[in-house]
Amino acid sequence: MKTQDLNLSAQESNQLIASGNRNVFYESGVFAVNIIGSPGCGKTSILEYTANHFDEKFAVIVGDVKTALDADRIIKSGQKNAYAIETGGGCHLTANMIREKAMEIDLKGIDYLFIENVGNLVCPSAFDLGENLKIAVLSIPEGDEKVRKYPSLFIRAAAVIINKIDLLGFMDYDIEQVKADCRAHNSNVKIFETSVKTGKGFDEFFQYLRDQRKHF
Amino acid sequence: MKTQDLNLSAQESNQLIASGNRNVFYESGVFAVNIIGSPGCGKTSILEYTANHFDEKFAVIVGDVKTALDADRIIKSGQKNAYAIETGGGCHLTANMIREKAMEIDLKGIDYLFIENVGNLVCPSAFDLGENLKIAVLSIPEGDEKVRKYPSLFIRAAAVIINKIDLLGFMDYDIEQVKADCRAHNSNVKIFETSVKTGKGFDEFFQYLRDQRKHF
Repeated sequence: MKTQDLNLSAQESNQLIASGNRNVFYESGVFAVNIIGSPGCGKTSILEYTANHFDEKFAVIVGDVKTALDADRIIKSGQKNAYAIETGGGCHLTANMIREKAMEIDLKGIDYLFIENVGNLVCPSAFDLGENLKIAVLSIPEGDEKVRKYPSLFIRAAAVIINKIDLLGFMDYDIEQVKADCRAHNSNVKIFETSVKTGKGFDEFFQYLRDQRKHF
Repeated sequence: MKTQDLNLSAQESNQLIASGNRNVFYESGVFAVNIIGSPGCGKTSILEYTANHFDEKFAVIVGDVKTALDADRIIKSGQKNAYAIETGGGCHLTANMIREKAMEIDLKGIDYLFIENVGNLVCPSAFDLGENLKIAVLSIPEGDEKVRKYPSLFIRAAAVIINKIDLLGFMDYDIEQVKADCRAHNSNVKIFETSVKTGKGFDEFFQYLRDQRKHF
């Protein structure tokens, strides 16, 4: 039997596997969300809050360079259906990492899959995982110029969460400028202001997820 | 004339150029510092503070994916000798970017070169720029588990700055654990606690830079 070397680039091969993931998720009725933001912007805290307040069936995959600390936090918060991927140095998740991890998950038993990417504003945005929705997370203490400085994520993100909104007022942060910067990259972007301390913004965010799943 | 294709990997070629940079800096008496940390940890604020308080001759190169906002901030703070590199999507600076930018700088006229890398805890740590010292910057609002989650930087950093120390006490942050994690990766690491609001830690940091330059 003859074999054929496809000679795909890393990006091409990632895209093929991502498309496969998207099909598998679709067939199983799973709406997948890829969550991207800086280290410390609150991705895991948002998922902990979601574990306790989002009344739908879902699983979580958490990527980190090292440790399963974040997946452990989510399991501890009450969502047992959480899985860690250690990239072992890799600065972003790949579609193949998600493909392999998704095999451990009962996809028929869930409606949503949240994927927390490695904390990084640059590299994760370039790698499709097969998600239906890419969400960027910002946070007030990071400063208000991040959208301008890291455009590739904000061109691709359908929604942006501005997190730790309870700290607005304590820090120099021009939120209207940030929103304008987001809209300059994507005029249809949906923006949420959230705080896991006060719960602000989460009802609207959860409703958005339900609405998006209806139409996928 | 015959040519030879060296077939170097990106890393090998970066390393060659980095060694070249290091030689050029040494010949010019320039002590080069590569500053690495998350988006929003305060790298630029630290350099603004340095521009106003570090009484030595130095230049600054600032890398960002997009915009020259940070270099502009440093120029505005009084340090005219600041230069922007836009990586145009790249998630880290490379030795060749520094080599090209350094040609614009009067190296004989300075004693220190501060290089602010792209905001990213993962990729920049793997690329030698020809610096004499790699410094990692953490900040209190990011959370206290970053050293465990992003080990590659902390294995290589000779010094760690824990910035925004004025926010300690307002946030859940176990600073003794962070220091222990740093020492677990590098038992000789020098740790500074700084705040650009109060000036805490900078005298010690500046003295450290002077001491390091004496011995390079």
